[in-house]
Amino acid sequence: MNSFGRLFRISIFGESHGVMVGVVIDGCPPGIPLTTTDFEADLSRRKSGAKGTTPRQEADLPKIVSGVFNDHTTGAPITILFENTNTRSGDYSQFREVPRPGHADFVASQKYKGFEDYRGGGHFSARITLGLVAAGVVAKKIINPISIKATLVEAGGISDVEKAIDQAIADNDTIGGVIECVATNMPIGLGEPYFDSVESMLAHIIFAVPATKGIEFGSGFEAAKMRGSVHNDWFVDTNGKTRTNHAGGINGGISNGNDLIFRVPIKPTSSTAKTQQTMNFKTGEISDFVVKGRHDTCVALRAPVIIEAVTAIVLADLKLLNK
Amino acid sequence: MNSFGRLFRISIFGESHGVMVGVVIDGCPPGIPLTTTDFEADLSRRKSGAKGTTPRQEADLPKIVSGVFNDHTTGAPITILFENTNTRSGDYSQFREVPRPGHADFVASQKYKGFEDYRGGGHFSARITLGLVAAGVVAKKIINPISIKATLVEAGGISDVEKAIDQAIADNDTIGGVIECVATNMPIGLGEPYFDSVESMLAHIIFAVPATKGIEFGSGFEAAKMRGSVHNDWFVDTNGKTRTNHAGGINGGISNGNDLIFRVPIKPTSSTAKTQQTMNFKTGEISDFVVKGRHDTCVALRAPVIIEAVTAIVLADLKLLNK
Amino acid sequence: MNSFGRLFRISIFGESHGVMVGVVIDGCPPGIPLTTTDFEADLSRRKSGAKGTTPRQEADLPKIVSGVFNDHTTGAPITILFENTNTRSGDYSQFREVPRPGHADFVASQKYKGFEDYRGGGHFSARITLGLVAAGVVAKKIINPISIKATLVEAGGISDVEKAIDQAIADNDTIGGVIECVATNMPIGLGEPYFDSVESMLAHIIFAVPATKGIEFGSGFEAAKMRGSVHNDWFVDTNGKTRTNHAGGINGGISNGNDLIFRVPIKPTSSTAKTQQTMNFKTGEISDFVVKGRHDTCVALRAPVIIEAVTAIVLADLKLLNK
Amino acid sequence: MNSFGRLFRISIFGESHGVMVGVVIDGCPPGIPLTTTDFEADLSRRKSGAKGTTPRQEADLPKIVSGVFNDHTTGAPITILFENTNTRSGDYSQFREVPRPGHADFVASQKYKGFEDYRGGGHFSARITLGLVAAGVVAKKIINPISIKATLVEAGGISDVEKAIDQAIADNDTIGGVIECVATNMPIGLGEPYFDSVESMLAHIIFAVPATKGIEFGSGFEAAKMRGSVHNDWFVDTNGKTRTNHAGGINGGISNGNDLIFRVPIKPTSSTAKTQQTMNFKTGEISDFVVKGRHDTCVALRAPVIIEAVTAIVLADLKLLNK
Repeated sequence: MNSFGRLFRISIFGESHGVMVGVVIDGCPPGIPLTTTDFEADLSRRKSGAKGTTPRQEADLPKIVSGVFNDHTTGAPITILFENTNTRSGDYSQFREVPRPGHADFVASQKYKGFEDYRGGGHFSARITLGLVAAGVVAKKIINPISIKATLVEAGGISDVEKAIDQAIADNDTIGGVIECVATNMPIGLGEPYFDSVESMLAHIIFAVPATKGIEFGSGFEAAKMRGSVHNDWFVDTNGKTRTNHAGGINGGISNGNDLIFRVPIKPTSSTAKTQQTMNFKTGEISDFVVKGRHDTCVALRAPVIIEAVTAIVLADLKLLNK
Repeated sequence: MNSFGRLFRISIFGESHGVMVGVVIDGCPPGIPLTTTDFEADLSRRKSGAKGTTPRQEADLPKIVSGVFNDHTTGAPITILFENTNTRSGDYSQFREVPRPGHADFVASQKYKGFEDYRGGGHFSARITLGLVAAGVVAKKIINPISIKATLVEAGGISDVEKAIDQAIADNDTIGGVIECVATNMPIGLGEPYFDSVESMLAHIIFAVPATKGIEFGSGFEAAKMRGSVHNDWFVDTNGKTRTNHAGGINGGISNGNDLIFRVPIKPTSSTAKTQQTMNFKTGEISDFVVKGRHDTCVALRAPVIIEAVTAIVLADLKLLNK
Repeated sequence: MNSFGRLFRISIFGESHGVMVGVVIDGCPPGIPLTTTDFEADLSRRKSGAKGTTPRQEADLPKIVSGVFNDHTTGAPITILFENTNTRSGDYSQFREVPRPGHADFVASQKYKGFEDYRGGGHFSARITLGLVAAGVVAKKIINPISIKATLVEAGGISDVEKAIDQAIADNDTIGGVIECVATNMPIGLGEPYFDSVESMLAHIIFAVPATKGIEFGSGFEAAKMRGSVHNDWFVDTNGKTRTNHAGGINGGISNGNDLIFRVPIKPTSSTAKTQQTMNFKTGEISDFVVKGRHDTCVALRAPVIIEAVTAIVLADLKLLNK
Repeated sequence: MNSFGRLFRISIFGESHGVMVGVVIDGCPPGIPLTTTDFEADLSRRKSGAKGTTPRQEADLPKIVSGVFNDHTTGAPITILFENTNTRSGDYSQFREVPRPGHADFVASQKYKGFEDYRGGGHFSARITLGLVAAGVVAKKIINPISIKATLVEAGGISDVEKAIDQAIADNDTIGGVIECVATNMPIGLGEPYFDSVESMLAHIIFAVPATKGIEFGSGFEAAKMRGSVHNDWFVDTNGKTRTNHAGGINGGISNGNDLIFRVPIKPTSSTAKTQQTMNFKTGEISDFVVKGRHDTCVALRAPVIIEAVTAIVLADLKLLNK
């Protein structure tokens, strides 16, 4: 389903080349100041246009149509809409018979029996994440003073991200990257064992972000190689501060007051300009295939603000649950 | 909360040193053959006793007290109970003031205001996973012919698991490991975008398993280093079979019919016999600390059957949702 | 919260005098023909303008902005928007200090701490039911061949509804009424014990319709006066058809294949033109009070199509659950 | 499904003639004093044995097996079990072919394809309400100082309940009744529009109680006959106290601080000793039919404590939601 959250609950909708995309935010407390200008910074971080991102340009102006009155949240559902204006739908109908490798074309066609809106990835498009970013702006206000910062720490396998992009563009190919996200000023006690643990809720929503392929908390996969005597974080003060933070700020699914830290690998953009092969599912023939249209060299460039947003959404929900 | 699933829904309860632990399974279709012997194989895989596992021995006999009639499921909730018999509660009361590093003692005490059952980790104990394994046995019947196999592919940083255990025992320390899980005979179309994606649902429940610190699907973190032209899985037949499986059997959150593959790092057991330091939260003093009691050298040894179980639980739910 | 349903799930939003009201429908199967003309008949039944209804006239044109492609549902969330055009907001600010008897003014102000949109009842306005009616149109297609018919069988205490309206208008007062709803061609087996029983789910959503004060199934309150030998419905054929239908088509919370029958009392419109008394919560003074503005003499006149809609929504959900 | 509630969440399980029935309560705050003696008063009110109730006698001793430590709730799920001891299963197998009028035999057999536990009504038995009463005991502690009192105000159509019972016994028949439930010391602000309104949540769970056929709040069905000028409750003080209470303590789905009042009709016990007719679904023949076994003349006698319990469960949930 297209909703997430227990008390702070979001519902996302829309298609890449449809009339609009948007989000309904239910459960936001009343009295939070909110205007469209609050969204500018995060929406612009998600936007395309920079080197390595798609040239498709959308105004991405949020339209708040419910839940806000006199520039404050009312406690009723907040609905935020984004019109789609710069769409070119002619390019996509072929992908029903000749699905693009690495895309959802094939599974969508099978699951929705050919009724899916296949234009620009339809409902599977990363454009739907606009609603996540918008909801994240609201969530960040709720979780104050927690502060979240996500960074692209690696692209194409190297830490010099700009160099990696240049090489990929030169090679006419696409690359992925790794996002690291840190939340500071964390309270003790967020998260509920077992199924509403901090890790469970965060991982759940992280995988709703297109192109994510994994998540690790604290030392993550590296922890599996450590000894217990090394991995354990020793307490150094009576607030629960620890000497190391191998746990990533979570014990038993519950925040321990240290920084929340996790990393997420983003796969390379599926739409590479390199020649590939694919199957024509009508004729059964395999032939060469070149993706056209406007695409990102590295979607990971635009992902940090989305990762921050979904992290804020989860922490807002857990904060309300913890009261 | 302690429940998970939309149509195939499980609720787990109990404490390590309480009267019993158990699970309620709601939404199981009627007419599935089920007797207590069906649980033997998986429960015994989870059991302790082998080298590297805790010497605490429990009979772990499942008692089915509802939802089964004439050796078949009825469609009503199935309740399965496990009595706790071999408990030694004297060891644990100290951990309220002197919480063990790497454990949930500190956060539990803060969150539950000192009312938590602190004996043997209480509700945070891995003993609660008995209910997950039991529910997994039922789930595996529902998802037939899907077959799930989880394996410990690395322990203490090396692939020779036995050697790793021997070294850890010799060093009086604990180690973690990496579990790889593969589901074969996967249908096309399981999972719902965005928030009920296969990855979201699996990751959610995987992090409900104690000691898990991450998850990656298909090429996972390695995918972030690949080029798009390499990462994309090319279709090789009209059933959707692909040449490679970097995606781990999932596109757009939906199963594509190829094998579902993911890996999970398990941290080293927190209860190492090595001397550590910890904080006395009453006095504010830091002092040496040695864990006593019965513990696993490597909890990852017992984890594969639990990983299989939660995977089956999610796939059963998604299969029912997909109808 | 503002969402309802397990598999066929609706989320409603908007305020009486806001930009728009609307609904997001999640979980609708793909391939159902749907265009804006499908909504005309039911939306016009809900509309005002007839004798006994408010003179506030809205175009009520549905705008489908997601989830429909080539005039068919896609399986993605369907979002339907209705713009508010004919709003007069000047009338309402006084009700924060002098709340109207019988309205939500007082509780809204208390619960939302003065941040609620108080214009025209804000989020509590019956205008929000537009989204319910729109979702009902979609649901009716899903439950085909089940057919639902709701009728105003009593107004102001008499069965001659027109006469009751005339008397109320002549007296410058308002009246309520009783809606009877019958669903025919019911299948056997809808509803899940205990908490998703047909009665539970229907009653839940019926009380989301403003002004409803009760519900009774089959013989309802009359059943409490009957003997068991009279009340029991005897089977007369092997399809489960019964001689009488005191049960209203439900046994043990599950549809039995006979007609589903229930009745709902609608209270008289709170906004009567008669002089009342109310409290000024700032000064503590009680004084005479006359409601101005545009209001319905009998909201029950416009309620049948809403009752039908929410009934269809529940039956669609239960039908999908029963698969 | 067999679970209910958002933050205070209950799951019920068991069958009339199975091993045990029980309840899991999730979301109960830590630190509430709780021992088995707390359950005695309410469980004994639900018990049979008095005139007009079934002679089947069960000890109904609650066994708390999780979530309570040192006689206080811990914040972990509370599981309460009741063993079934006094069962006679021989009587019931015939009802699969010859379903009892007014019972769930027929729909259960159809829905669960013959796999249902048909002994004593199986999972449909009123015995399952033991779990509701037990959860109600916990909920009543949470909602303190709200006080709930349910009373049987009418049986067999008259207010002299004892006389009604005597007549029914004399006639060898069964009767129903009407329960009135009043909650005092209500806070302002419980309930969420639309779908978590006080009425929606209460009605939802009330219809999970076997034999309920309706619900009305405040003036209920009588309200439909009133004029608006009469029905509106005028405020008489600045706490929101009203002169009358036609609304039953709820406006716009939210508690207004006045007493919460509702009434519930209970149908006559289906198992009347009078001769009836029913259908043999195997042979298609209609023949006379006499119910044997142990049954209540008037189940409504034992219903008030169950109605109180489910009311407390909902109010506890709404109270936690309102924080």
